Amino acid sequence: VSAGAGARRRRLVGWGFEGERLEPTPELERWLEARCGRGAGRPAPDPATIELPPPRPLPEIPAATSRDPLDRLAHARGQGLPDLLRLRDGRLPTAPDAVVRPADTDQLARVLEVSAEAGIVVVPWGGGTSVTGGVNPPPGERPVISLALDHLSGLLELDAGSGLATFGAGTAGPALEAALAPHGLTLGHFPQSWELSTLGGWIATRSSGQESLGYGRIEDMVAGLELVAPGGRLDLPPLPASAAGPDLRHLVLGSEGRLGVVTRATVRVRPRPPATVVEALLVPGWEAGLEAVRRLARSELPLTLLRLSDPPETEVAVAAGLAHRFGAGAARWWLRRWGVGRDACLLLVGTAGEPEVARGVLRCARRLLGGLGALRLGTRPGARWLADRFRHPYLRDALLDGGIATDTLETAGPWSALDRIREAVTDALLGGAPGGRAAVLCHLSHPYRDGASLYFTFFVPSEADTDAAVAAWALMKRAATEALVTAGGTVSHHHGVGAWHAPWLPREVGDTGMELLGRAAEAMDPDGVLNPHVLLDPTDRLESA
Amino acid sequence: VSAGAGARRRRLVGWGFEGERLEPTPELERWLEARCGRGAGRPAPDPATIELPPPRPLPEIPAATSRDPLDRLAHARGQGLPDLLRLRDGRLPTAPDAVVRPADTDQLARVLEVSAEAGIVVVPWGGGTSVTGGVNPPPGERPVISLALDHLSGLLELDAGSGLATFGAGTAGPALEAALAPHGLTLGHFPQSWELSTLGGWIATRSSGQESLGYGRIEDMVAGLELVAPGGRLDLPPLPASAAGPDLRHLVLGSEGRLGVVTRATVRVRPRPPATVVEALLVPGWEAGLEAVRRLARSELPLTLLRLSDPPETEVAVAAGLAHRFGAGAARWWLRRWGVGRDACLLLVGTAGEPEVARGVLRCARRLLGGLGALRLGTRPGARWLADRFRHPYLRDALLDGGIATDTLETAGPWSALDRIREAVTDALLGGAPGGRAAVLCHLSHPYRDGASLYFTFFVPSEADTDAAVAAWALMKRAATEALVTAGGTVSHHHGVGAWHAPWLPREVGDTGMELLGRAAEAMDPDGVLNPHVLLDPTDRLESA
Repeated sequence: VSAGAGARRRRLVGWGFEGERLEPTPELERWLEARCGRGAGRPAPDPATIELPPPRPLPEIPAATSRDPLDRLAHARGQGLPDLLRLRDGRLPTAPDAVVRPADTDQLARVLEVSAEAGIVVVPWGGGTSVTGGVNPPPGERPVISLALDHLSGLLELDAGSGLATFGAGTAGPALEAALAPHGLTLGHFPQSWELSTLGGWIATRSSGQESLGYGRIEDMVAGLELVAPGGRLDLPPLPASAAGPDLRHLVLGSEGRLGVVTRATVRVRPRPPATVVEALLVPGWEAGLEAVRRLARSELPLTLLRLSDPPETEVAVAAGLAHRFGAGAARWWLRRWGVGRDACLLLVGTAGEPEVARGVLRCARRLLGGLGALRLGTRPGARWLADRFRHPYLRDALLDGGIATDTLETAGPWSALDRIREAVTDALLGGAPGGRAAVLCHLSHPYRDGASLYFTFFVPSEADTDAAVAAWALMKRAATEALVTAGGTVSHHHGVGAWHAPWLPREVGDTGMELLGRAAEAMDPDGVLNPHVLLDPTDRLESA
Repeated sequence: VSAGAGARRRRLVGWGFEGERLEPTPELERWLEARCGRGAGRPAPDPATIELPPPRPLPEIPAATSRDPLDRLAHARGQGLPDLLRLRDGRLPTAPDAVVRPADTDQLARVLEVSAEAGIVVVPWGGGTSVTGGVNPPPGERPVISLALDHLSGLLELDAGSGLATFGAGTAGPALEAALAPHGLTLGHFPQSWELSTLGGWIATRSSGQESLGYGRIEDMVAGLELVAPGGRLDLPPLPASAAGPDLRHLVLGSEGRLGVVTRATVRVRPRPPATVVEALLVPGWEAGLEAVRRLARSELPLTLLRLSDPPETEVAVAAGLAHRFGAGAARWWLRRWGVGRDACLLLVGTAGEPEVARGVLRCARRLLGGLGALRLGTRPGARWLADRFRHPYLRDALLDGGIATDTLETAGPWSALDRIREAVTDALLGGAPGGRAAVLCHLSHPYRDGASLYFTFFVPSEADTDAAVAAWALMKRAATEALVTAGGTVSHHHGVGAWHAPWLPREVGDTGMELLGRAAEAMDPDGVLNPHVLLDPTDRLESA
């Protein structure tokens, strides 16, 4: 069984590591119950009791191959809501027939060859945190192996003068930062999945970290990379920039295993900042918040993070304890006076650097917000948010235990489209919710000069029957995705396409775009070995997710 | 005849506009003569006397079609040294059989259809400033049309709130900025060819402007675009960022007409700064200069430009009059005392914004250079450089008149490779020069956190015979390109690949990369209509350039 980062063991049913949990505060439970009620609680079963389909016969695979049931279970599903629901059901409709762990790139290439000959489907596996069905075995007759990159990991080369570090693609977030720390360096890529996800996965899905405003998206960080596929190897050298034709790095970034397996990448690293400071403010309404974020994102201030919660998410943040650090009851009363529960929006403003400089930057940021009526809450809520940011997904499991299902979705669009997108998606989610009962939260993050990402979290009472629960989710997911694409948003800002967003990709890139991607897949993977069901197959399979 | 921007008429033999000239200073002439001597002067002929191959028959073309000899001449060559030499020869080996100017995208698409049916080669033409043979008709039997995008131009749409402006691809630099100016906006893309080159050309060649440090490269500016090709249309919506699969914008960026014609693009614009200020400094040597640039490029200061000249280029800058503004003779004596002519390197540091803020930023920049022994020359040389920056290419024509041939080449690489690249390219150019007589200048510009661009200018005595002059150039060009690729540099940082760099592209992207690009070309242009000789055809044709 894959042990995950360090000595901590990955939980097999649910998010993260064994022993870790995050319980909702009583106030949050009351808030959710008032809005969406509560459905059937479904406790997580003992992993050893979960039924998997019997493993199909496989030819000799030229790399370490495990057919252990718990190992197969650990590589059977990603981390989307349907994945949690299916695992809790105690019976999985699909699972890989084996987990294969190549020792190096050459072994990996031979595994792909053998798979092509034998008609095996290969699903590359980094951290397994996909929330788009991107790592789930496809249904069908062909045998499936999960290609785990555990052994292609670690710091391979460091060019400190250029600020370039080469890592194996299987390196997870904490191991990557731990390898850079002794050199006083950081990558600065901190997606919510950071404790589990890997460099290769970030590249394959065009990941964006929470501090992308300062450090950039993964595509800004990748200077060079290697991709191994049945059709050939692509080895793109680290370059700061180039006009030597189209940039093939951008064909690999976001290719989700469909064009090959990312085995290694050279990333741009930078000095590790002595401190990361996040200040919290309240702004009087979403409009004022948008204006605040846009001003700051377009300033030359070295900010690393801007995050604006809408009124419901602001209320939840307070209910979930973000206010604790500056004095429970009284503070909450005072926050209500300031509009929390009505129009007030929580704004987080982050920067990194010498503490004194960071304080100066935040002072400048506040000054730029003059006239918007922002109320300063100080850096304690931000410190709390920073400390907890990788723990938030644990809440999903605790809520499911108690009968509340929750999922997230996200997009990005130009500033002029954001209001339209937010309204359309919220309406679609409420309209698609079982019995119309749902709580929908939204925040804006990852701002750019020309637009930003919108991130939605929704809560619904969970159905007792698994198929019914997945069907309810599919209805909301389809309605929301249709709404965001129609309103001018991208299919995904950082979750990727996977199997579940694939029906909408043609809407974004058109028939010609699909044709170009198809040709690339044909060149790299003529037999359709690698993830044939994700990215390019537009079949809508949400109900069977 | 294409009139170029505004009322000024494009010169048909040489750079830029009729009436404009830039003469070398006597001091620069002496400096060059001492180093490389002087060859055969070759005056520019009257354009009307230049012999073109007779136009081949063409079918009816469904758009405005000109077979006027001067129009054909105006679209026969780019602006590389071989182009200038061939034009001055008075006889061109190839020329387009017609210049076609579609009125809109649909007409353009029909022109491509007809061309595919009739086996015509189509060379898309923006500003015609390619220095890589990218707009020259290929030799061979097939008829060739130059597809001029003059009528696909202007501001089509402005989303001011999002900072997004949509332009026709044929919009040249001055017209683009003039359309944005009334809205208080700028694109900030200022390549040296800015007065002539177009948005579509910038996209097709992955152009980088002189202030890329602040405004980014063209690929950072493009939010969405349309590409029209025989195989289909690609219409990618403006998005601030996306994880919806590979980014096909990056397949279009740098595609050099090979995958289709860029007809329209939505670019990220920003407030026009009240002032752009460039300060000049002298640093004691190349090493100190590298350290200075690296420190500044990695700082969070909002700089827009960093440019470090090596000792010979520093000497030339002074000889060419950069010192004039702060008092001719005495100043020059004083500069010599400070190392100009020995190790001193000129460093330009630019920023844009409110004048007071700009001065503050430059003060901070100087402070970051503490300990490097930089000498401040003030902002006058920088103002002079800014005022003249688009005029520098006129010098090439004046030097050719006097028997000195000059050309430039450029690359980029990680910081750790820059010294190696600079030495290798300089050695290759000196080794390949006729009789070993050449002057080679180098500057570093477009710095990134992980590396920078190196830009080389070389001067040689020009041969009397055109074929011999092109052959001499080919020898140096081949040696230098081989050297920079071997030393870890990219084939091009911003000039593109065209026909002349194409033999080295496989070294950078490998066989698999070439295969992927070939498949994309097959999808978009199955009959090989568009620029079949550039980018993907690795035939070395330097001698017949």
